[in-house]
Amino acid sequence: MKRRQLLTGSITTVAATTLSVPAVAQSSPAVKWRMASSFPKSSDVIWGSSVAVADAVSAMTDGQFTIQVFAAGELVPPLQVADAVTNSTVQMGHTGAYFYIGKDTAFAVGGQLPWMSNARQFQAWLHAGGGNDLFNTFIKNYNLLNLPAGNTGAQMAGWYRKEIKSIDDLRGLKMRIGGLGGALLKRMGVVPQQIALGDIYPALEKGVIDALELVGPLDDEKMGFVKIAPYYYYPGFWEGSSELSYFVNLDQWNSLPKQYQAALRHATRSVGLEQLTKYDAGNTAALRRLVSAGAQLRALPEDILEESYKQSKLMFAEMSAANPNFKTLYDHMSKFMADSNVYLEISELYFDLMKNTARRKGWDKI
Amino acid sequence: MKRRQLLTGSITTVAATTLSVPAVAQSSPAVKWRMASSFPKSSDVIWGSSVAVADAVSAMTDGQFTIQVFAAGELVPPLQVADAVTNSTVQMGHTGAYFYIGKDTAFAVGGQLPWMSNARQFQAWLHAGGGNDLFNTFIKNYNLLNLPAGNTGAQMAGWYRKEIKSIDDLRGLKMRIGGLGGALLKRMGVVPQQIALGDIYPALEKGVIDALELVGPLDDEKMGFVKIAPYYYYPGFWEGSSELSYFVNLDQWNSLPKQYQAALRHATRSVGLEQLTKYDAGNTAALRRLVSAGAQLRALPEDILEESYKQSKLMFAEMSAANPNFKTLYDHMSKFMADSNVYLEISELYFDLMKNTARRKGWDKI
Repeated sequence: MKRRQLLTGSITTVAATTLSVPAVAQSSPAVKWRMASSFPKSSDVIWGSSVAVADAVSAMTDGQFTIQVFAAGELVPPLQVADAVTNSTVQMGHTGAYFYIGKDTAFAVGGQLPWMSNARQFQAWLHAGGGNDLFNTFIKNYNLLNLPAGNTGAQMAGWYRKEIKSIDDLRGLKMRIGGLGGALLKRMGVVPQQIALGDIYPALEKGVIDALELVGPLDDEKMGFVKIAPYYYYPGFWEGSSELSYFVNLDQWNSLPKQYQAALRHATRSVGLEQLTKYDAGNTAALRRLVSAGAQLRALPEDILEESYKQSKLMFAEMSAANPNFKTLYDHMSKFMADSNVYLEISELYFDLMKNTARRKGWDKI
Repeated sequence: MKRRQLLTGSITTVAATTLSVPAVAQSSPAVKWRMASSFPKSSDVIWGSSVAVADAVSAMTDGQFTIQVFAAGELVPPLQVADAVTNSTVQMGHTGAYFYIGKDTAFAVGGQLPWMSNARQFQAWLHAGGGNDLFNTFIKNYNLLNLPAGNTGAQMAGWYRKEIKSIDDLRGLKMRIGGLGGALLKRMGVVPQQIALGDIYPALEKGVIDALELVGPLDDEKMGFVKIAPYYYYPGFWEGSSELSYFVNLDQWNSLPKQYQAALRHATRSVGLEQLTKYDAGNTAALRRLVSAGAQLRALPEDILEESYKQSKLMFAEMSAANPNFKTLYDHMSKFMADSNVYLEISELYFDLMKNTARRKGWDKI
């Protein structure tokens, strides 16, 4: 039954209008959801994305489908967002899939893996390579559906009190780093620490940690780390393409009208695209301000990159042996990445390289 | 007035229900649009995007806002889509902004410029750097609004009958290439030709042209060029980040309910993201099939890259001097690109480089 035909086609008979009411209620009911975020309001871009998704959904449904967003800790602790969604405490959450590797290491694959992919590749795997569908067959076990929430692009390797000249300087280094990045660096002598966002600066000040990683210049700047740990390293090889997640309770998703499902799905992709553009548009200015404030920008020494790459493969092999869920996702993803890389290397990467070569060789001086 | 409250809040009085009808008609009217595409149905990914946008908009408005998509030539010739939108022959079009540099060279900037940016940078400029807003102040003169339609990523430099060993081999080369790419190659001795898609193969067969460029492996494969012009070159420096456009008639846009504007805007961004993932997920397999079929994959010689880079800067300087519209957009864009490149080079590009170095050095052999 087309409600619009009923409502606009004829208003000559009161009966027809009255009959149309149940149809309206069915297809465009007022739906109010709550979204728990793992992120504080101070994480401007990421928090802003969740609010933008809620705004978009409301705008596209004429205010009929509203989502109220709660910052980290307002309803549930930041690392328990998935549980709150599974349990229907909230209908959806904005979080990082890799926060839940304690439940099952396969969660990591929903966010990226160390050394595995850049943002283009990861989003290609998710959206066109069957990756997100496969991930969703896994998190169905938790009554969850994943809607990818947008990428940060390649992150920095973080802030360090002292210069890192070789892999020896990692031994015993107390570093705030979580997830598989932490597990990987632990294999190289780092002592990883889990510290909540608000506690990082004091921990650095008191010498509880020697180093930390967060995201990149745009997010890092406001934390003021440069004053205590001025060595700012790249590349963040454990987060070459960090994709966050909207986890939706599967029953709630299935009970949504198709119209609202479409609005939510497209809103998350549209805002996700915008999120990456915000990072790409803002990171350089933030980096310049950080360097003016004393940041010492450095590339990690090659022995660290080499060992971390080798250790990542060993770690994935061990994780695959220990967990068939991880193995299924890892095998699928790593095959896709090796494959997609072939064309990206001669097209995208070569173009970027030559574009920078041109600048370096002064071809732009006309 | 909240129509839903009226419709679902109380159905005890017939009067209230009847009164609500005008409100419904106002906020969610049935709207039927037509979209003229510059692309044939055979351009799977790009044509598919326009259909996906129409589907998304319909799904998000419960079938109230429908857009019928017409392939190239069905309603208007492919290179007259912008005019058809300006004149309200259709409400919107799917096209390439650079198709219209004959009207004003500033149109080129809506799609990308040679040697200027990769896809990440271009989308950052459009969506978060004020680029699309600025472009829209320009095309307002044509009663148009641009909604960016998604990127192809860095393209190939096309198919050549003979190997290109140095810049000397470009002299007199009859090549099917349009837009600023054609203008740029002309400065290096190429004789650019405008040939419609369906006429390229016969032109190649008859020797009317010696070379041609299209997009990349996924789109090029089905054309069969490999049989006649097997040398397949990269990088397509004139199309490092080709972004297509949905041009919308500005009056039609302004008359859309806000709800439908939001649906159309988010649909184009969401589907745009998906478009790039389809290219990234499909190009390698197509490239492999092409190489099996005899494609000779080659990098363009450095003297061509150098001269093309220098010539691009000279060309932009001349275009800026001749056209203040172009100059405004070009200055804005090139400043943004130089800036965004600083962080992207140490993060994204360095990560990609090291990821490929790792493979090349065998760090993945564990």
